[in-house]
Amino acid sequence: MINELCKKIKALKAPVVVGLDPMLRYVPGHIRKKAFAEYGETLEGAAEAIWQFNKGIVDAVWDLIPAVKPQIAMYEQFGIPGLAAFQKTVSYCKSKGLIVIGDIKRGDIGSTSAAYAAGHLGKVTVGSRRIAPFEEDFVTVNPYLGTDGVKPFVEVCREEKKGIFVLVKTSNPSSGEFQNRLTEGRPLYELVGEMVDRWGQEHMGDAYSYVGAVVGATYPEEGKVLRKLMPKTFILVPGYGAQGGKGADLVHYFHDDGLGAIVNSSRGIIAAYQQEQYAAFGEEGYADASRQAVKAMIADLNSALDNAFS
Amino acid sequence: MINELCKKIKALKAPVVVGLDPMLRYVPGHIRKKAFAEYGETLEGAAEAIWQFNKGIVDAVWDLIPAVKPQIAMYEQFGIPGLAAFQKTVSYCKSKGLIVIGDIKRGDIGSTSAAYAAGHLGKVTVGSRRIAPFEEDFVTVNPYLGTDGVKPFVEVCREEKKGIFVLVKTSNPSSGEFQNRLTEGRPLYELVGEMVDRWGQEHMGDAYSYVGAVVGATYPEEGKVLRKLMPKTFILVPGYGAQGGKGADLVHYFHDDGLGAIVNSSRGIIAAYQQEQYAAFGEEGYADASRQAVKAMIADLNSALDNAFS
Repeated sequence: MINELCKKIKALKAPVVVGLDPMLRYVPGHIRKKAFAEYGETLEGAAEAIWQFNKGIVDAVWDLIPAVKPQIAMYEQFGIPGLAAFQKTVSYCKSKGLIVIGDIKRGDIGSTSAAYAAGHLGKVTVGSRRIAPFEEDFVTVNPYLGTDGVKPFVEVCREEKKGIFVLVKTSNPSSGEFQNRLTEGRPLYELVGEMVDRWGQEHMGDAYSYVGAVVGATYPEEGKVLRKLMPKTFILVPGYGAQGGKGADLVHYFHDDGLGAIVNSSRGIIAAYQQEQYAAFGEEGYADASRQAVKAMIADLNSALDNAFS
Repeated sequence: MINELCKKIKALKAPVVVGLDPMLRYVPGHIRKKAFAEYGETLEGAAEAIWQFNKGIVDAVWDLIPAVKPQIAMYEQFGIPGLAAFQKTVSYCKSKGLIVIGDIKRGDIGSTSAAYAAGHLGKVTVGSRRIAPFEEDFVTVNPYLGTDGVKPFVEVCREEKKGIFVLVKTSNPSSGEFQNRLTEGRPLYELVGEMVDRWGQEHMGDAYSYVGAVVGATYPEEGKVLRKLMPKTFILVPGYGAQGGKGADLVHYFHDDGLGAIVNSSRGIIAAYQQEQYAAFGEEGYADASRQAVKAMIADLNSALDNAFS
């Protein structure tokens, strides 16, 4: 799947992933109204609203991008109906040929991580049958529990030819509190990065390993160091746009062939119509606004990469 | 809710939580058979099997214990039907008067943690309505993202009078890989412990804060240090029994009034009938075996506490 991701990024010249993190306040009034009319102001109504919202965006942008990254929390907050909308979103995106990165940030002791890995990337055994419950292509993983919390994911990746992105340096303001602590003279995120590199070495695709890393766009200096420390690691970069990252800051997350990283934008794309710049699209044109925002993001990244590596 | 937990532990003289982490291989044949006959070898069939298994155990042990801790991964692996069984288990346990600790180990950037907190401990807004999706009383939280990944949970705890347990030193073999790294001369888990203490100070119940900590039974020396470092923090102790912890090793997780910690056992209780010691109960008597195992665990802990503090 990591080979597939590289191929798609190259073909589309778009190292971009759209974060499908729908909040109800991003959903245009007419979609909310219709969903609530049908299902009431219930969890089912909220789930229907975010699903229809997602569908509109996916239909508008699928041909421009290699991948989407639904953030499961935005669905899980609406309980079982919300999680069903997550699953529907994953399936729909896959039917459109998109690679799906489930942003689930799971991680637990070994047997428990194994259950998450089976549920999201692999298959569970029920009697004589093997069933794939959620079927994402990649998921994000929290490394705080160490190797035996991560390994079960890696094992499933090997069997299923799927991948993970391990949190190394996250994009949020307080990520440094623990991640930047100096341990033996070096920040913790470097040690986590080295482990990611090591976990990946035995699980290689053609040019990159199945074990990727999450490094926030908001910490470009750290990104530069980590790129060197993890040469075969694909980097998922959240925090572009609304969280503050810009294309020019991100060139060091890439190798000079323009591969090695994929940049996520969520709010900046899916709620583009709520920004001044795209306001002319209006609520009804929210999906077209998202398409414009995707194009602008791809252009920004490509121009930065062209400047840096040509 | 932390006051409620203390009260119940005292009343029952049982600082014990039963981990409802059902794997299909723990579920007696007759329950699996019935579920599969009704729903087929499907996710629905698996979910029905673990729900019926849970119900049997809860009915057998609810009067002995203050709390249960369902591990959501064991449900999530069976997709949407599995998660519906999680929710049903939470509701059923609450209807029996049990406190429910959702072992979800979530943690993300601020707005995303807020969604998890709303979904599991609080309420989401849908149109003009506020709805509580999962309604656990406590959840476990991963601190790798720092304060702004934890605070949204704490805010919801304050509003809803609920609580969290933050991973400090986990019970698994490789937990030391990052958690024990020396940072400024001290292991990382101590710094996390200090932060837990700090997060909790503004959110106090009567004697303990809303912000608890997870410290594995398998690391009693670390437990001893952390108990002192976090005097007002309630400690959730996983890893008793099947993972290796014993009552006598755990007295230093407690204060000398016998409060301050609650010890979890999962497999050792729910799959007791599969152990030699309780084999006489047979598959049909699995719930009675669990009851016996709970009684033995309570006796072990109380005798250890009596020895230590009398």
